[in-house]
Order: sequence, then structure tokens, then C-alpha cells
Amino acid sequence: MTNRELRFEAEELLDRYVQCLDEDRLEEWPDFFSDKAVYKIISRVNVERNHPLATMFCDSRDMMKDRVVAIRNASVFSQRYLRHLVSNVRVMGQDGDAHIVKSNYVVLQTMQGEETKVFNAGQYVDKIIFGDGGPKFQEKLVIYDTIQIPGLLVVPI
Amino acid sequence: MTNRELRFEAEELLDRYVQCLDEDRLEEWPDFFSDKAVYKIISRVNVERNHPLATMFCDSRDMMKDRVVAIRNASVFSQRYLRHLVSNVRVMGQDGDAHIVKSNYVVLQTMQGEETKVFNAGQYVDKIIFGDGGPKFQEKLVIYDTIQIPGLLVVPI
Amino acid sequence: MTNRELRFEAEELLDRYVQCLDEDRLEEWPDFFSDKAVYKIISRVNVERNHPLATMFCDSRDMMKDRVVAIRNASVFSQRYLRHLVSNVRVMGQDGDAHIVKSNYVVLQTMQGEETKVFNAGQYVDKIIFGDGGPKFQEKLVIYDTIQIPGLLVVPI
Repeated sequence: MTNRELRFEAEELLDRYVQCLDEDRLEEWPDFFSDKAVYKIISRVNVERNHPLATMFCDSRDMMKDRVVAIRNASVFSQRYLRHLVSNVRVMGQDGDAHIVKSNYVVLQTMQGEETKVFNAGQYVDKIIFGDGGPKFQEKLVIYDTIQIPGLLVVPI
Repeated sequence: MTNRELRFEAEELLDRYVQCLDEDRLEEWPDFFSDKAVYKIISRVNVERNHPLATMFCDSRDMMKDRVVAIRNASVFSQRYLRHLVSNVRVMGQDGDAHIVKSNYVVLQTMQGEETKVFNAGQYVDKIIFGDGGPKFQEKLVIYDTIQIPGLLVVPI
Repeated sequence: MTNRELRFEAEELLDRYVQCLDEDRLEEWPDFFSDKAVYKIISRVNVERNHPLATMFCDSRDMMKDRVVAIRNASVFSQRYLRHLVSNVRVMGQDGDAHIVKSNYVVLQTMQGEETKVFNAGQYVDKIIFGDGGPKFQEKLVIYDTIQIPGLLVVPI
């Protein structure tokens, strides 16, 4: 595939990914990852200081499924809407079979009776496998700028 | 056309569409639609609850033109700037001659003497006809997350 | 190059450009411009009223380099993160050797201990040269909607 085709495919994967999250179809979220994929939400501060502490960490699709069950069972939320925008999708290079793709994202949150606000902004650093079953994340790092998170960050981004 | 070409054409239509609105060229706004097109701004809450009540509704290009005249004649606004960002443009399938295209948008508003704020965020669900005269909207649903709208929502989005 | 290829190349240039700024690699910022390039940050109000007064103005790459040195030496900032999103990239036409490309941007700012906010939103109006050494800006106008800027605007956008 050319660089252009890779970017196109990566954009399509990201488009479907954020639509899944925006529509709160969390049960489908693990399907965007390969079996042994790593998913990590980590602050930009921690990345820059080499602190490994992550806000959310999964190192397999099964762990992601457990996470979704936990969110559904344990969490009581006031109703809110999330809306992701992703831009500046860049294919940066390769790591083994995977392509490294960076992009910028912002998640907007609308709580009942409140204005729409920035919930979280940052960068996706993804390793994507372009296989027979369509592209999958082999690793997805969500590196967020936002330090003060309005409400708890318990959902995937 | 391939899926990739369809997305490219849809993106170009959306780019021109939001530029028209950002530059307040409302008189050109109906030209983005086919004759009998439907334009609807409706809250996500109402869509989810199957309430048909729309915030703005037009079912022909003539009705859109009337709307623009009404906005120009009747409305007194304090000066403000709008800025649309659109991302995650996805060709979802076909409905008759039209292609269904979903995308996420945010409109930022700058009022005199105030910081730039999120005015409205949500999803475009479009049916687009790719005809000889270039692509046109046959239907455009603006499904907005934002419940508290800072100022009245009287302009198209 | 076809219009589609031009847009693709312009998007890649913009992607690299904003990543450079987001990662605070200011020393590399002038490299995105040709030797005699013009860089201007100007308010939308001033553009509309034909006031030439710019918030930042450089008319050569050397002047940009001086600017970066000045920022590094003179400025004391509280730590903050910036995050650019760019959308609606449109190739509008040609001006001599350059292609005119417009896009919408938003810059989100995260200050220590604060929520992420809109720092600046507006439009890029670029003249891009597609030469042997890769695409470069021959002119970049940053026309911003945002009037109330939270903190001083001393960095390029």
C-alpha cells in the first residue's frame, strides 16, 4: 500500500472507532483491537517525565472486555454525550508488521443542563496492523493534555 | 465511484458548505441542496426518544430561501463569528440514488469581548446525490448534542 | 498534480506543521517556509475592515528564526500544552507558482491546574509551493476569530 492508501485506511479505522465511542457502543470497542493489543490512556506529563503510570491500561482484548463489563455494572453516570473529533492523521513509519499513526483528538462532553465543553484533548499514537480481517489496533496510546478532567475518566477514549 | 472517491467528494462538499456558513454567505446556503431536499436541525435527545420535534425544519430549497430572508430581515444580532470544524467523514451506504454520509462537527462561536466557546457540537447525517451539477444534499440532518445553546439557534449549522 | 493530490500534499504539510507546534519544536518552525515567505497572524476584524495591523508579522525565514530566538530568550511562561486541530482543507486556486489553500483550525490550551480551553480559532489562508524539496509555505495568514486571548499570543499558530 502507498502512504496515501495507508492514511486513508487509518482514517477509516479511526472514524469507525470514534463513532463507536460516541454512540456508547462500548461492547464493540474491543473489536477494534488485535488479540494481544495494548490500550493505554496516559497523561502527557507522565509521558514526558517517563512516569509509566497510566490512567487506564489493558494488555489484551479480553482485558478490554472485562473493563467494559465493569463500566456497565459498576458505574452510575448522569446522562452525558461525548463527541470525538480527530484530525491531522499522519503515518509516521513502521514497527515490525504495524504502522505507526499519530493523530490529534478532542472529545467534547455535553452534560444535562450544561454547555458543551472540552472533556479531553490530546494525541493518539497508534500501531495499526493492516491484515485480512481489516485494520486493527495492535497498540493504542491515548496521550492526553487535559489535566483537570470534568468528571471521572472511566470510559475509553 | 469508489468508496474513497465518494468520501473525497463528500468532504469537498462539506468543506464548501461550512465555509459558506462561516463567512455568513447565507444567501448561497440553499444552493447546496437539491430542489426537494429536507434540512432539519434536531436534538440528539429527540432523535433517541423518537420525538419528531425539530429546532429548524425545511422540506424544499424554496423554504430554505424564505428562511434566509426571515433571518436577514427579522434578526438583530450582536456581532459574532462562527467557525465550523468537521471530521470523521464516513460513507455509510446508499439510499436509492443518494449516499449516506455521517460526520462529526463542532461550531465555535466568538462574541465581541468574549472568549471563543463551543456553540454547538454534534453529527451531520447527510444523503448526498452525486449528479452532473456536482454533489448536492438531498437530506441533511443536524443532530446536536448541545442542549444549552449560548444565544438563540436561528442560523443553519 | 490533480486537485486531489494537491489537497493530500497540503494536508500532510499542515499535519507536520501543527505537530511541530504542538510539540514545541519552535526551532524547526521556519523550515516549513520558503526563504522570502510571509507569515502573518491577524484578527478577522482587521481583515474585514482592511486594517493592516498584524499581531505577528514576518517577511522572511530569517525573521522567523529571530522571532524564535526572542521567544526562547525573553519569554517566561507557565507550563502549558497546545493542541491544534485542522479541518476542511480546501485547494482554492493558484497565484503564480503557489496554490492557495484554506483550512479551519482550533488551538486548545491546557494550563496547569485548569481545564482545556479554546485558545484560538480561525482560518489558515496559505500559499503553498510544491517544489523539489517538498511543499513549503510561501505565505501563511492566520486569521483568527478569537478576540479575547487567554494569556498573551506570542507563539506562532
